[in-house]
Amino acid sequence: MISKSMQQAVAGSSAIRAMFLEGKEMAAKIGAENVYDFSLGNPMTPVPAEYNQAIIDAVQTESSLELHGYMDNAGYPETRQAVADNLNKRFGTDFEGKHITMTVGAAGALNIVFKAILDPGDEVLALAPYFGEYRGYVANHQGILREVAPDTETFQPDFEDLKNKITEKTKAVIINNPVNPTGVVYSEETIQTIAAIMGEKQKAYGHEIYMVSDEPYRELVYDGNQVPFLTKYYDNTFVTYSFSKSLSIPGERIGYVAVNPSLADCEQTCSALSVATRILGFVNAPSLMQKAVTKAIDATTDVAYYDRNRKLIYGKLTELGFTCAKPQGAFYLFIKSPDADEKKFVETAKKYHILLVGGTTFSCPGYVRLAYCVSYEMIERSLPAFEKLAGEYGLA
Amino acid sequence: MISKSMQQAVAGSSAIRAMFLEGKEMAAKIGAENVYDFSLGNPMTPVPAEYNQAIIDAVQTESSLELHGYMDNAGYPETRQAVADNLNKRFGTDFEGKHITMTVGAAGALNIVFKAILDPGDEVLALAPYFGEYRGYVANHQGILREVAPDTETFQPDFEDLKNKITEKTKAVIINNPVNPTGVVYSEETIQTIAAIMGEKQKAYGHEIYMVSDEPYRELVYDGNQVPFLTKYYDNTFVTYSFSKSLSIPGERIGYVAVNPSLADCEQTCSALSVATRILGFVNAPSLMQKAVTKAIDATTDVAYYDRNRKLIYGKLTELGFTCAKPQGAFYLFIKSPDADEKKFVETAKKYHILLVGGTTFSCPGYVRLAYCVSYEMIERSLPAFEKLAGEYGLA
Repeated sequence: MISKSMQQAVAGSSAIRAMFLEGKEMAAKIGAENVYDFSLGNPMTPVPAEYNQAIIDAVQTESSLELHGYMDNAGYPETRQAVADNLNKRFGTDFEGKHITMTVGAAGALNIVFKAILDPGDEVLALAPYFGEYRGYVANHQGILREVAPDTETFQPDFEDLKNKITEKTKAVIINNPVNPTGVVYSEETIQTIAAIMGEKQKAYGHEIYMVSDEPYRELVYDGNQVPFLTKYYDNTFVTYSFSKSLSIPGERIGYVAVNPSLADCEQTCSALSVATRILGFVNAPSLMQKAVTKAIDATTDVAYYDRNRKLIYGKLTELGFTCAKPQGAFYLFIKSPDADEKKFVETAKKYHILLVGGTTFSCPGYVRLAYCVSYEMIERSLPAFEKLAGEYGLA
Repeated sequence: MISKSMQQAVAGSSAIRAMFLEGKEMAAKIGAENVYDFSLGNPMTPVPAEYNQAIIDAVQTESSLELHGYMDNAGYPETRQAVADNLNKRFGTDFEGKHITMTVGAAGALNIVFKAILDPGDEVLALAPYFGEYRGYVANHQGILREVAPDTETFQPDFEDLKNKITEKTKAVIINNPVNPTGVVYSEETIQTIAAIMGEKQKAYGHEIYMVSDEPYRELVYDGNQVPFLTKYYDNTFVTYSFSKSLSIPGERIGYVAVNPSLADCEQTCSALSVATRILGFVNAPSLMQKAVTKAIDATTDVAYYDRNRKLIYGKLTELGFTCAKPQGAFYLFIKSPDADEKKFVETAKKYHILLVGGTTFSCPGYVRLAYCVSYEMIERSLPAFEKLAGEYGLA
């Protein structure tokens, strides 16, 4: 018999799987081209050629035992240095290689950060709506996740609620920017306000309250928006990152944690991350992938691809009378459900072969998430279905 | 400030790092060729050519988005099937692809198994001497590790102690075969005896007590020895495996869990492993590495390389009067310390530039581990130093 906590997790996972299978059945019945699956956040832009070339070069030219072998748990020195240099060049920061721990993706990065900082019963705040997996990541380390409400006009955080939710037990606040699932970018003003609140609370409680920045969508921003780089605003900051979206390689599990050089007990904390990656069983980020991202560190993805999708679907949905937060980053739209119960709206959308994810998954019922990391042609094909859906709710 | 549990872990890790640095300093002073570092368990045999070729072929011929993309958390269907087929062919088992979860190495495999089965306070037994990392893996999931004493004549387990240590709270017994650090292979008789004891205790307590087999050294056996494949002896068995040693690719983090089809609640347990790999932050085993091991599944390492080393070092050390368990597998020798305090012996060996690991790390004080996964030439060069070391203890 599996453990009690896993019995719940498996049940929850079965629901997602059921939806996935439903989509497959739909495709088998009416043809895949007639199913409009907006449920998955998988990158769609081409993998940069220099990344694939870097893999081939490494395999053909480097010593196999070293290439596929162990290194320091924190990663190859040259990879850590390349990440530090890249950040410094782009954001004017002063990271050294020793501040970087290479990780098994952003999920691995968040887990080693929580392993390093959480004592049992410590609280971690997430700004709703948020990526539901954070619940599991915090629980893995016996932490307790608490939610901060959004301002549902702008989907920036509700600062009063943030103030009230920080307690003596709060050890960290997760900041995901751009935000999955809303596509909103937290502005510099928002970050400054959060930093000021956290700074005051640190003083009041006399211990660190860490900012844990989760930025897999950092490069996916539109209309000239900039994502504030958080170490500039707050000393006790961890930046967690994945190359999944920027290089379209989510299956390869490669990312990093960058520790702000001015974080309290910085050196001991970096050691703790390195030990945590070993203890949790990651051991180290996959070695060949470390070599490949070192070479492809300056590669960028085709943001225009997602931007074109964004303009088409956001333009059409608002024209049809749907209400969405203005999407400025990532590849998601967060749509206000025209049905008070968003689960019913998700079901109604399915009648028109549109697959969406209910906001409850992101602790924000009454909304649905649409992922537009799909082909432009699929969006075009889907528009008549959205028209009918709007019609059913009398929106247009 | 890092968490309390990590403060201890970092301190422990610093001790290992100190030894590593000491070796480096020694090499800088007297030349790397005059330092005999037997402390690390890193594979040394060439990476099979078909593995590297499989990587290049996949990058050159497959769709990049699929190759580097997400798949089911449990892994690519063809990879899981290839593992099942390989096991069935070699061991006469009846695995299907659905019984296999691809993992981030054996450490990742053990962690998802413990995540899937342990409730807080559950006990896991390890047969001393054992790989010290098990302590962390069990603690990650709020389990409690208990030790079973060895028979120090044979380094097979002490069965009476095993009987006494299994309690109402025991959820699993870890069996590492061949054994790190002794190099001993548990015989079929040993496995049958353990299985019989565990079977009785399951009945007595009315719940599953799982056998968790950790077999990264499965293929490294000598003198025609066979490692019993545990699902044949006990229904409630998980087999965890890494390709690190068999393909010499420890940095790539690729392995698997195979669930015995006759394990209780097999289907739900397989689901739990898949969910656990997601929740713990591994998400899935690195995708390109899954493709590569699929193609290289029949590749084997050069066992004769390690065997030649084994014969040289074991022959010489016993000739010099040292006492070691007969090494039948893996690439370790476990030497009885001629000093009652093995830490002193480790220090004395350093005087002769020989680096060994004390048995306390493996919960077996009074012994030291020697890893002979080094070059044959280094062993040859080290022999006069061992002669002096034996002389200092008046052994010869």
